[in-house]
Amino acid sequence: MNNFVFDNSTKVAFGKGCVREHLPEFLEGCGERVMLAYGGGSIKKNGIYDEVTQILREAGKTVTEFSGIMPNPTYAKVLEGAELARRENVDLILAVGGGSVMDCSKAVSLAARYDGDAWNDFWRNQGTVDFQPIPVCVIVTASGTGSEVNGEGVITNEQTKEKLGRDYHACNARLALMDPVYTFSLPRRQMVSGGFDSLSHMMEIYFGKPDGPNVSDDLNEALMRGVIRDLRASIADPEDYDARSSLMWESTMAENRIIKLGKSTDFECHMMEHALGAYTNCNHGEGLSVLHPVYYRHIYQDGLTKFCRFATEVWGIPAEGRTKDELALAGIDALAGFIREIGMPTRLSEIGITEENTDLSEVARSCEINRGGYRALTAEEIEQIYRECL
Amino acid sequence: MNNFVFDNSTKVAFGKGCVREHLPEFLEGCGERVMLAYGGGSIKKNGIYDEVTQILREAGKTVTEFSGIMPNPTYAKVLEGAELARRENVDLILAVGGGSVMDCSKAVSLAARYDGDAWNDFWRNQGTVDFQPIPVCVIVTASGTGSEVNGEGVITNEQTKEKLGRDYHACNARLALMDPVYTFSLPRRQMVSGGFDSLSHMMEIYFGKPDGPNVSDDLNEALMRGVIRDLRASIADPEDYDARSSLMWESTMAENRIIKLGKSTDFECHMMEHALGAYTNCNHGEGLSVLHPVYYRHIYQDGLTKFCRFATEVWGIPAEGRTKDELALAGIDALAGFIREIGMPTRLSEIGITEENTDLSEVARSCEINRGGYRALTAEEIEQIYRECL
Repeated sequence: MNNFVFDNSTKVAFGKGCVREHLPEFLEGCGERVMLAYGGGSIKKNGIYDEVTQILREAGKTVTEFSGIMPNPTYAKVLEGAELARRENVDLILAVGGGSVMDCSKAVSLAARYDGDAWNDFWRNQGTVDFQPIPVCVIVTASGTGSEVNGEGVITNEQTKEKLGRDYHACNARLALMDPVYTFSLPRRQMVSGGFDSLSHMMEIYFGKPDGPNVSDDLNEALMRGVIRDLRASIADPEDYDARSSLMWESTMAENRIIKLGKSTDFECHMMEHALGAYTNCNHGEGLSVLHPVYYRHIYQDGLTKFCRFATEVWGIPAEGRTKDELALAGIDALAGFIREIGMPTRLSEIGITEENTDLSEVARSCEINRGGYRALTAEEIEQIYRECL
Repeated sequence: MNNFVFDNSTKVAFGKGCVREHLPEFLEGCGERVMLAYGGGSIKKNGIYDEVTQILREAGKTVTEFSGIMPNPTYAKVLEGAELARRENVDLILAVGGGSVMDCSKAVSLAARYDGDAWNDFWRNQGTVDFQPIPVCVIVTASGTGSEVNGEGVITNEQTKEKLGRDYHACNARLALMDPVYTFSLPRRQMVSGGFDSLSHMMEIYFGKPDGPNVSDDLNEALMRGVIRDLRASIADPEDYDARSSLMWESTMAENRIIKLGKSTDFECHMMEHALGAYTNCNHGEGLSVLHPVYYRHIYQDGLTKFCRFATEVWGIPAEGRTKDELALAGIDALAGFIREIGMPTRLSEIGITEENTDLSEVARSCEINRGGYRALTAEEIEQIYRECL
């Protein structure tokens, strides 16, 4: 097991009714001025906006709204929020939404208190800050990214065509409120995309050394089997509380740092998706669903032991009668079959990316190379993977 | 999934060399006066005492020693430490040891700042306090209890013959330093006893509702299979770093609150052991190893679904060809076989407890009844279980 440091300051309150139960007490300990951050307005249709604003009124807070946070939130939007937060001198950012809203809000919490060029200093050059960002509380309405329990803010800079993120501990939310019922009204496409994003996080963590017995891989396999089971059950019945709550908690467990401990992680597939996303604004989970099987067929021989284990432990494929290569490929085929089963895209063309509208060579050259997986790709290989995905 | 709140403030630094790497920086943020708490002196033989005191000297700290903390730490010892901590006005308690040293130190951290009757108000009547206990940093030299990552302090009151504990969040250590190499010199009996204590925590959490698919049970099964595997490997080679580090981290994962989330837990076996321990001062892990199979044979029909799952998922026993009763009992038999395999006691007489020297009826009547498992026992049943264990 590799050495590690674990530290996670986010408090989580989980379950039906948790917002009404826990938000008022949390608000008592905050200042008077709250910035309510949300996305395109679905929370006004499903009643969540009304519930939250009523609690804020009862708590006597002065509320500033910061709405219209888009999927793949832009750095321009972060700067808009930061300017608003400074002008209104807010004491708390209350983010109500999914990964995009949470990521943008955490980025705003830092940028609002930073005088320099936050993009360059913080996102691109991984700098640190010596102040406390504005406190953030998140109310999760769409699960998948795990953003509720880490310091990650994945932001797209449209000018420089970069989509960057990092898990910066000071940006962890103080409190995450997770009511599975709040996710019931999510469109199926978003639910499935979020669920696959969780599975992707787990796989990106899984496919790295060590290959021998270790706690991270043991827990990870349990989570992967769980997310596969619970995504199927959630598709069958989107109001199955047990399935939706397990699915929600599995996505949190994938990104609360626990299963990353003691091992190297890959995340090259996320890097390839981020590069594509910066150029095309594609849906994150859908970009991942296209890339994963193709990427894994490229690298499986460098991590053959783990890919065999993936086949037997996650997909229940018997090792008997198969060579290691056959077993590993059968596991990747099972993953590809699951992607088709849950109705996710398997080709970039299905999500609007073609050779005609996207310079895949340029995208590939912009892609960050991770060193934690079984093989560090070259830009040429990344381009080749993109082309195979068309 | 049941509603829950998760919150764990302890920072963990894990791995070979972590004390030298992380303790100096942590000490910078503390005051000048440090109480160094430890047990019977084994840390003076294995070099850990020298390493830690040198770091304290380099940091210019004024050190007060609080030594001789015994297994099953007593409330008298807690009061002794509290008196010393007050007199020396310590800013930090640095606990170096296993569960007993950590538990006692956390209890001291609270009692030192409490003017009333801490035993009555805090341990027995589950009161709360409105002050911050003295900060605690733990350096783990024996794993098993998981005390490094929670607020638990299990303390024996010799006068009232009570052994009580509770997970009080304000008592969480600020920093836990976990170097697996520090556990290498532990005698085999203690290593095995600690490993079984971890498995016991996992089982106590596992045997509670829900019985359907849920994240806690999924993760727990992965941890149980891991602790069984890694305890075997650690017995075969006590200096197998991978096995010892996994074993250490599994015991932490069992008690950092994560796998308790969303479900009811039992811990009746711990209660039965605590009652026995208060009267006989028996070894905690060994008391548990005697009690578990007998207790489970008593209650398995009330949790038949989960006991069948335990047999198939943890012990790999095929369900085919067995009735549910047979399958459940085969799982308990496998547990009993493992206890014999690792050389732990299976009879109370082996750990010095007999009908002649212990009033089992009185012990049973003093035992706390938990309500989270599959059946709440009566005092008569507890006495019967004790007698079957003789």
